[in-house]
Amino acid sequence: MLTIDDPATVAELTEMADRYETALMANDVETLDALFRNAPETIRYGVGEVLYGFAEIAAFRQGRVGGSPQRRVLRRVVTSFGPDLGTVNLEFQREGGTRIGRQSQTWVRTDAGWKITCAHVSLMADIS
Amino acid sequence: MLTIDDPATVAELTEMADRYETALMANDVETLDALFRNAPETIRYGVGEVLYGFAEIAAFRQGRVGGSPQRRVLRRVVTSFGPDLGTVNLEFQREGGTRIGRQSQTWVRTDAGWKITCAHVSLMADIS
Repeated sequence: MLTIDDPATVAELTEMADRYETALMANDVETLDALFRNAPETIRYGVGEVLYGFAEIAAFRQGRVGGSPQRRVLRRVVTSFGPDLGTVNLEFQREGGTRIGRQSQTWVRTDAGWKITCAHVSLMADIS
Repeated sequence: MLTIDDPATVAELTEMADRYETALMANDVETLDALFRNAPETIRYGVGEVLYGFAEIAAFRQGRVGGSPQRRVLRRVVTSFGPDLGTVNLEFQREGGTRIGRQSQTWVRTDAGWKITCAHVSLMADIS
């Protein structure tokens, strides 16, 4: 059975998740691209798009004028499984928005460091 | 670097994904519960709910009268990372529905077999 939540691994993943959030809020496309695994298997299901493979994800970032809406993270859970894999799940609320958003990422350790191999972002129905 | 898409591992995960889909369509709550890792770290972001820990997920299944709406899987990608981890991402359409749904699951191999450690399900905005 894989070791769950080794503290050093969770600390690494937490730093990666922070780096991702900072890059997302700054629309730092270079860093966002660098945090996704550059491979055809990489998948990103966004709020309004389904993207298969790193190339589609990078093209979406390039075309997203102004980047992601600003948002506040409400709750975040980082979990590691063994030394090389982890998940980051979080809830967020967009600035001025009333819907709860959710973001799930699965990270793998590659020769080039930790990378996101799949991500899923969605907004729940309006609860206001 | 973890081995990506070892054929035997992908075959195992594909069988698990098939088993999950069959159980979901039959509202076979016992099997659905058995396919989620029974642990506080397990997370399920559903179309209309956020559930933290196995107990919340199991309670949701119990309370979901009639189970999940019937759906058709449009596209599915199963990817493995090393011998003990994998992801299943798929698009679906609900019977009579016009919105595209997405389901992402991260699976880990435990002493009790493959289990889902986190899942995220959402519907995109109506495209009809």
